Amino acid sequence: MKEIAAFEAGIKLGALFHQFIGAPVSHENAEILERAMESCVMLQPHVVHAEVKIDREKLSERLSEFDYCSLGGEMIYARVVVEVDGFKATGILEWDEDRKYPLMKLSIR
Amino acid sequence: MKEIAAFEAGIKLGALFHQFIGAPVSHENAEILERAMESCVMLQPHVVHAEVKIDREKLSERLSEFDYCSLGGEMIYARVVVEVDGFKATGILEWDEDRKYPLMKLSIR
Amino acid sequence: MKEIAAFEAGIKLGALFHQFIGAPVSHENAEILERAMESCVMLQPHVVHAEVKIDREKLSERLSEFDYCSLGGEMIYARVVVEVDGFKATGILEWDEDRKYPLMKLSIR
Amino acid sequence: MKEIAAFEAGIKLGALFHQFIGAPVSHENAEILERAMESCVMLQPHVVHAEVKIDREKLSERLSEFDYCSLGGEMIYARVVVEVDGFKATGILEWDEDRKYPLMKLSIR
Repeated sequence: MKEIAAFEAGIKLGALFHQFIGAPVSHENAEILERAMESCVMLQPHVVHAEVKIDREKLSERLSEFDYCSLGGEMIYARVVVEVDGFKATGILEWDEDRKYPLMKLSIR
Repeated sequence: MKEIAAFEAGIKLGALFHQFIGAPVSHENAEILERAMESCVMLQPHVVHAEVKIDREKLSERLSEFDYCSLGGEMIYARVVVEVDGFKATGILEWDEDRKYPLMKLSIR
Repeated sequence: MKEIAAFEAGIKLGALFHQFIGAPVSHENAEILERAMESCVMLQPHVVHAEVKIDREKLSERLSEFDYCSLGGEMIYARVVVEVDGFKATGILEWDEDRKYPLMKLSIR
Repeated sequence: MKEIAAFEAGIKLGALFHQFIGAPVSHENAEILERAMESCVMLQPHVVHAEVKIDREKLSERLSEFDYCSLGGEMIYARVVVEVDGFKATGILEWDEDRKYPLMKLSIR
């Protein structure tokens, strides 16, 4: 059913955000972190696609004197597609600068 | 819409699980941890009810020699109700012993 | 021994930071979150004192349109005292604005 | 100083454990997760070496019906070496079956 697909997409985005937020990140390990985050999402039930991008500009702005920082909500873009009984739900996580909030959006078909 | 309510319920359960799993827990602080977890969920958009229970029997089984352990998926029960445009979606997180999995279920009306 | 006390103090601060960073926080639940965080630290071996403060001004600055935000390193002050074989080690976690970094400091006696 | 090296080693192990515990893991992504975890530790101040191993046997035992599980303390081995002013401190995180506890040990020279 449609609602189950939507529910499952929501679970994946909530999980991704709260599992990895705070992880030490720099330009050096951003890519391996992106791949690891995607690999974690891909294991979860019903997921057919996962894409994670860490915004390198936001990362640069946040770097500490030690050249890394904690992974923050303002840096994460994620797109997760789940499929349940033929319904595909796509969840997108993206920082909304106006709302100062990691907004999660759903599209379904 | 119904799907948005389902999506939002999913986000909350995924977030709750992955934010707090691993937290040090014992019989002494289980209650304050439950209340803190509920308080975090209640802040999130569209949430109208949140209830978290840490299974004291499972907790007892998992206690280390130091009388506490890491909060594990097998101990957490959570029930979150969100409301979007008049649709109420209830998400329930509960350990499924047969599947060895923290199953999340949805009901909606 | 002195080094063990220092090691144990370090463990507690690293654990506290990375367990709770990202948790939903507002002026409403900041206090219960502080108490829950302290309760988690107090369970760990050798801890004799734990104090956590969430900076309400920094919190105000970071609030999203939804009146809460993710707990960030710039908001957390923590002081943990451990005792091992008569040596007391105090670890302090405090945001360093110049370094843009959650600095952790040790004092021991 | 010796104590600072010990303190820094402790921070790294506490951070590693509490950041990644709960992450979805299977035989498929265990290796990328190990590398990502190491990459995070390597960014932190004073670290000269980091090694993370996820115990594949313990992982197999814990797999859910969906062929993955949450990363648990009983699966993680980590070894972190920090150097401060010529002092090298090695912190080791390893599950202690008797104590049912993810024990952290220090050696220093």
